[in-house]
Amino acid sequence: MDAFQDHYPENVAHCYGCGRLNDHGHQIKTVWEGDETVTRFTPEPYHTSVPGFVYGGLIASLIDCHSTGSAAAAMYRAEGRDLDSLPPFRFVTGSLHVDFLKPTPIDGPIELRGRITEVKGRKVVVETAVLAAGVLTARGNVVAIQMPEDFGTAKPG
Amino acid sequence: MDAFQDHYPENVAHCYGCGRLNDHGHQIKTVWEGDETVTRFTPEPYHTSVPGFVYGGLIASLIDCHSTGSAAAAMYRAEGRDLDSLPPFRFVTGSLHVDFLKPTPIDGPIELRGRITEVKGRKVVVETAVLAAGVLTARGNVVAIQMPEDFGTAKPG
Repeated sequence: MDAFQDHYPENVAHCYGCGRLNDHGHQIKTVWEGDETVTRFTPEPYHTSVPGFVYGGLIASLIDCHSTGSAAAAMYRAEGRDLDSLPPFRFVTGSLHVDFLKPTPIDGPIELRGRITEVKGRKVVVETAVLAAGVLTARGNVVAIQMPEDFGTAKPG
Repeated sequence: MDAFQDHYPENVAHCYGCGRLNDHGHQIKTVWEGDETVTRFTPEPYHTSVPGFVYGGLIASLIDCHSTGSAAAAMYRAEGRDLDSLPPFRFVTGSLHVDFLKPTPIDGPIELRGRITEVKGRKVVVETAVLAAGVLTARGNVVAIQMPEDFGTAKPG
């Protein structure tokens, strides 16, 4: 599997949601399947809201990182460039919206299927369907903004 | 501190974000300060996006549970009832929206300050400001829906 996140430059590979270098985090992996970006993630038993169902914060988190990764991949694809080519594209989240349609069962993988609905300047919009056992349980909409080049090196404050 | 979450019935006290019985989770605590609901949370070093800043999924997660807790507290207050009185109020998230205004520094507590902007039937809307060192870094809007009484006991599927 050639996941977008495996190509992130090292200084942006520490994210709790999607960084391959974050040992505590989710380390999600996202790939193209045709024109859709797909992330599959199996929650831990403790990622629960009420017993039997997934905690909404996890769903929001997965949508967030799935979408910023999808946005970067879309920009590489739009320019006909490999994921490893320079300069790197990385995106931050401008806004995140999640509609929770029904409880998401926790006893199996969650599938996120994203579509790129807008690419304009430094902005990419990603709409994501969240499915569990093939049933749509949530929808996400993320406005992703291309990260300033000094973001990873700037000090807080 | 008399936090809303300390009064949750046991069958809804397992949430990764706010359940006092989830040993792996964030166990957030929310209180009234006048007409605002306030949650303070100190991120772990690994809750990072890029080094120095908080992962957006954590901010979304905190807003989510802070808001469902705030919604329940608002309903108790609207009815002039104690948080322990029966039947219990618990809310699920109908929709979650987060605007990320600037990076949130990771080296200190995050403060969430919520306002109840609508109470209508089984729906409560909560708007939340996220602050780090007193600086507004994100805004959240949650539409919380009163949980069906069988939610915590229903089996997935």
